[in-house]
Parts: sequence; C-alpha cells; structure tokens
Amino acid sequence: VNAQILTIGDELVLGQVVDTHSAYLAQRLATVGVRTFRHLCVADNVNAIAEAVQRSLGESDLLLILGGLGPTEDDLTRQAVAQALGAELILDPEWKVRIEERFHARGLDLPERNEIQAMIPRGARLLTNRLGTAAGFEATANGTRLVVLPGVPSEMKAMFEDHLLPGLSEAGDTIFVTRRLHCFGAPESSIHQQIEDLMKTGRHANPQVGILAQSGVITIKFVAEAANEIDARVKLDPLERTCRERLGELIFGRDGETLEVAVAKRLEARKKTLALAESCTGGLLGHLLTNIPGISRFFLGGIVAYSNAAKTELLGVPPEWFETVGAVSAKVAQAMAEGAGRKSGADVGVGITGIAGPEGGTREKPIGLVYIAVCVDGETTVERHQFRGMRETIKDRAAKSTFNLVRKCLA
Amino acid sequence: VNAQILTIGDELVLGQVVDTHSAYLAQRLATVGVRTFRHLCVADNVNAIAEAVQRSLGESDLLLILGGLGPTEDDLTRQAVAQALGAELILDPEWKVRIEERFHARGLDLPERNEIQAMIPRGARLLTNRLGTAAGFEATANGTRLVVLPGVPSEMKAMFEDHLLPGLSEAGDTIFVTRRLHCFGAPESSIHQQIEDLMKTGRHANPQVGILAQSGVITIKFVAEAANEIDARVKLDPLERTCRERLGELIFGRDGETLEVAVAKRLEARKKTLALAESCTGGLLGHLLTNIPGISRFFLGGIVAYSNAAKTELLGVPPEWFETVGAVSAKVAQAMAEGAGRKSGADVGVGITGIAGPEGGTREKPIGLVYIAVCVDGETTVERHQFRGMRETIKDRAAKSTFNLVRKCLA
Repeated sequence: VNAQILTIGDELVLGQVVDTHSAYLAQRLATVGVRTFRHLCVADNVNAIAEAVQRSLGESDLLLILGGLGPTEDDLTRQAVAQALGAELILDPEWKVRIEERFHARGLDLPERNEIQAMIPRGARLLTNRLGTAAGFEATANGTRLVVLPGVPSEMKAMFEDHLLPGLSEAGDTIFVTRRLHCFGAPESSIHQQIEDLMKTGRHANPQVGILAQSGVITIKFVAEAANEIDARVKLDPLERTCRERLGELIFGRDGETLEVAVAKRLEARKKTLALAESCTGGLLGHLLTNIPGISRFFLGGIVAYSNAAKTELLGVPPEWFETVGAVSAKVAQAMAEGAGRKSGADVGVGITGIAGPEGGTREKPIGLVYIAVCVDGETTVERHQFRGMRETIKDRAAKSTFNLVRKCLA
Repeated sequence: VNAQILTIGDELVLGQVVDTHSAYLAQRLATVGVRTFRHLCVADNVNAIAEAVQRSLGESDLLLILGGLGPTEDDLTRQAVAQALGAELILDPEWKVRIEERFHARGLDLPERNEIQAMIPRGARLLTNRLGTAAGFEATANGTRLVVLPGVPSEMKAMFEDHLLPGLSEAGDTIFVTRRLHCFGAPESSIHQQIEDLMKTGRHANPQVGILAQSGVITIKFVAEAANEIDARVKLDPLERTCRERLGELIFGRDGETLEVAVAKRLEARKKTLALAESCTGGLLGHLLTNIPGISRFFLGGIVAYSNAAKTELLGVPPEWFETVGAVSAKVAQAMAEGAGRKSGADVGVGITGIAGPEGGTREKPIGLVYIAVCVDGETTVERHQFRGMRETIKDRAAKSTFNLVRKCLA
C-alpha cells in the first residue's frame, strides 16, 4: 500500500505556517506498512486543489487530503474535491444536527455558513469528527482511496486514528516498526563514533539505523520492516542492547520518552518528591514536568524567583550574596535548590540561575552562563554550563541539562 | 513571478524530518514579490525526482529544488535533474579543486565519492557554496528557471541569499506585504461575521483578507501586493483601522505579538509589576512571560503551587478551604492571586487553579474546569472556564485565557 499526502492552505504554501501534518501522517502510515512517496501542498484555490486531486488519483492506493474544511470562504476543499470527483456537494442531515447540537451546547445558533461543514460529495462516506464541527469524508476514484480530513491538528489526528489507522493496520503484509533511543550529554560526533559500525541506511538496509540531532538531544533511530511486531522486535532488540552497552547512561529514554519523563520515572522508582526553584527558565521546568499526566504524585511545586528579592523572600537566599558572588553563581543555585526542598518538604530540590539574554551579559558572566544545582536528601551537586544561542534556545538547553542532572543524581 | 518548491529526501517524505525549508523559502520569496503556489516533496529515487522535475517545468517561472546533493548513494538529485533536462553530468574542474582544498585543510584527501559534488548537468551554471562541498546549479528549460540547492539548512539559506535573492528583488516589480491582527475571546464564526464584508480571497483580490484559527487565537490576515512598502501600507492601514473599530478589545496584537506580549505592553504602559500563582498550568505562564526579552522589569516571579500544601504554605490559602470549596474554586483562585501579589509585592497578582486531566475530574468539577483570578491593586476579578481537550491543550487555553484576562484588567 502506498500513499500521497495533499495539504491545502495559503498559509502553508506561502510559508507562513510550517506543514507538520504531512510528516506526522507519513510516520503514522509507515507504522502500518503504508509507504508515502509524495507530499504536495497547494493554495486555497478551487482549481488548484481540483487539479492536484485529479493528477493524484490513480497514482497511489491512498490519497490523504488535509485542510480547507472550515466554515469560511477560504475553505474550498469540499467544493474542489467534489469538482475533481465530478460529484455535487450534498448535505448530510445527521451531521448537521450534530453540529447544531454543538452550537446549542454553547448557547449559540448554528451560523448559516457552518452548514457547509456538513456537506460532502455525493457518493462519499462521511467521517465523523469528535473534536470539531468539520466532517471529513472518503471516496474511491480511479482505484485510489481518497480521504479528506480537517487541518486542525487535534481533529486531524483524532480522525486519522479513529477512521483510518485501524483498517490500514489489518490490510498491509509488512509493517515498519521504528524504535528511537535518545541520548543527552555528548555531541553527535562522539555518539556517531561509538555506533558507526551499526549504522545502515538506504532503501534495502533492514533495520535501517541512523542518527538525528535535535535541540541538544541525539536520537539513534532504527526502522525495521517485518511481517509482524514480534519479528520486528527480534530485529530491533539486539541493536538496542548493543547501543545501551556502549552508551550506558548517555541514553535517557526510548521512543516518546523525554528527559522530564526520565526524571518522573526515576522519582517514581526511588519514591522521591521534587520541588523547583527557577530563575532563568522562568517556569519552563515546571511546565514540562506538569505536561506529564500523574506527575502530581512526585512534583510538589516550585518557585519562579525571577527577581533577586524573590530569591531572598521566597527561598532564603542571603541578599548580600547578590553583591559578593552574584545572582548567577554556584552558591546561589545551591541555596535555591536547598531552599526549594526545605520550603516544600520535597526530597529533591532543584535550583537554576543564569543569563538567558539578550541583555544582562558581562565579560565574566556572559549570556548563556547557567548554574544548575540538584539537592537530593541534603546532598547537593552543582553544574556550570555555558550555552549558546537565543533566549529561547538557552532556556531550552538549560531545562534539558537540568533534567539530565536530576536524572543522574537519582541513578 | 511565481514559483514551485521541490524538496527531496526519504527522511522528508517518510515524515522522519519535518520540511521547514519550503516554508522558509516561500516566505523569503514573498518578500520580493515571488508567489509560491505549490510545494512538492519526493523520495531519493532517480525516476521519482526526474518525473517531478519534468512535470513542473513550464508550469512556473521558478522551480527551486532542494536536497540530495550529498556524496552518498542516497543522494540522487544531480543524476535525476540531468535526466529530466536530457543532459549528461559533467565535472566542474574548478569546483573539484575547491573541495579538494577544503579536505586538505582538514588534513584529508578528497574521498572519491565526493567528486560527484562537483558535477552538474551540461549547460547548467554552477552555484558556489561557501559553507560546504556540495555545488548547486541552475538552468533554464521550458521557460522555467530551475535552481538546485543542497538540503543542509545553513548551506541552503546562504546560497539562496547569495545567488538567488538579489536578482529576484531587482526583477520583481511588486512585493507582497502581510499584516496579521490577532483576536482572542470570541469564536471564529463571530469574528468572521463582523468582518465578512471585508474578506476577499482568490488570486486577484488585493489586499487579500482571510481568517485563520490556531490554538484559540483567531487571526485576520491581510496580504497586499504593491510596488513598495509605502503603497502596501496605504492599502493595509484603512483595513486595519476598520477591523479595530469593529472588534475593539478582541484584538490583542499585530504580526508577531502574542497574548503575553500584549500583557507585557500593558504592564509597561501602566507601570505595573506582576507575580503569578500557578496550579494547573504548572509554570507555563511564567515560561511564556520569560520568553519576552526584558520582562524582568515587570515580572517579579511566581509560585507553582501544584500541591494543596504548597498553596497553603507558599500562598496562605486556608487549608480548610480544600474541604469546603475545594482547590479548584473561585475562592482559591482569588486567594492565590492575592497571595502572589502580597508575597512578592507586585501590583498585579494572578492565580489559576484547575483540572488539566486526564485524571482528577468529577461530575461537579470535570476535567478542563479552570478558575482564573487577577488582582490589580487589591481589586480581584475571577473567571470560570470550561476547556476541552487533552492535558496540554487545556494548559494552553488556560494560559491564553489568563493573559487575556490580565490584559483586559489592565485596559
């Protein structure tokens, strides 16, 4: 089974928004053995969309079409696909009732324009949308199964998983299974060197092994083609074992695991609670931790001590230190970590202080200088880092390095 | 002048890497009046690439081709483009010397495989690459100017700016200027209704006016085609004025302005400082605020009171309230906002408490229920919200609604 993906939108084609949907879908399709061989993106224009659809029909088993199902006059995908199929648009009365109900639930009448969201080409099958008002639809033409989904990310994903993925997983004869091992704390070249002999790329390598560096995290990626999950595992497990033997603690997680998830797992394993004292990250550490469902069992809270006064009042940092060692120093980081633990009764206290820029750097304390302290049961470890880049990059790297230190301190 | 962008790579078409190049180039092209109308992405396969090139020739003034110029056997763009042009690949001896020198500088001999990086189709013009070894090239066929650049981001960008952009800026007689107005606090359909008569889309509308909804923010987008910046402004300013008259406080910002930037601007205008008490957002509010350079003048700090104990100890919420009204209540939100202001001496205190899920919901207090309180100089406003979606969506909407309330309270 092979597939093409057609995304629609002026904002995409003009580059105002980066298309992440195509990559998401191609990756999900690969997991069930569907190979995507082309992405196409066109503007909100009936003729351009219809032409792209017509060109693509007959070329692939599956044609996924995304976006342009909203209620405004920019949203022209329904009309264009109907035109390409040579069918008229007809109203699905059941879906119209469903979207009326959604509006009524918010105390609103169904705006006339939203009625279009219940229209599909005659002969097509409506695909329900449990998160929004835009119905999707599917049809078959020239041997191609054509599936039209809204561009809203959550709706697109839910509908893809609800309506498309289950049938596809049953249909394919081989599947692609991807496994990723994430490393932090060493440069890509050093990790590359240690696993170079395992790396295979190209269409016929099985499993394929590659390396990807993204935002400081180095990911080793294995893709196995196999008849089923078990055969894939037989191919992947020895590779994963070899990588783990060679790279040890550099590997912090697998597949969807982030550094903060690695921290949460260590907290759970060691039955510890954690509290934060953030300065330069401004709340990012707490935000990332609280993206993890159920984290409230281990994460008690934190203090964003952005100003020096806050560091003193909320964390007990002696005010004279700002004159002597300065707010960005190992000593203040340590006092913040210990203060966070003490104030909240947590087993693990984390303190971070640094200069995210673009202002505030000096020759001795340049932009990107960050001190991280982790205090576990009264014992504190401090690290000094010098990051490069813009404000948001510095915050990101500082957050990752902090979680990495916490993880190591809880090993 | 119009353009198509063709990106090449297995990792792109299989979704292992998100294509950000197309958006980058389309945006840069728009600034010099070149309108991109199609993106296409195909795998590392000679026939697929050659076919895509052949199909696209004659359709546009400019065809940008990216990627597949490396030295490995996966890199097939040179061969494929030569095939599409019906030309053989020939070695550029000068460029071969240049890349030999690059290798020698690192104490290495030129690997045989890298010689391909100095080959271009006969009749094409070589484009130098000051950051890498892969030469680019350009040629004209069927009235289309075809430009081939490497996929390495830094090399692609440098070569685009060096070789392509200067000529294009001189050639174009018009430019495209985009302006965006961002709204929050009303559904897309209601905003649409209020500016419906202004909306014009399609290739010939000038300025084009459209609406985009993303993560709760409704954006009105104007694209003007004009001879120069001033002419563009003459077209855009009256439209912006009309939208502002009709939508008033619903509009929180323009172009790159986020809700948190709108808050920062109000704080600056009113000379106020702010402190946060976050529960369900877990630090997200602080993180977003501290992405703004220079925010330390207005943002003092915050408390992430994730546990009830933290709400009591750090913010002074009476512990018996957790039994009577519950942690997720207007009363607790108000106490948190007032506590945040009092503890840190800020003029504005913000409190937010809610249930982000996926656990912890009850019939009376379902997942997505959030109370937001903003206390300005002792006067507190509380809002109750019921959000839908996953944990991260609820956090995102809660954060946006909080900044929106702060903005309104500082109007």
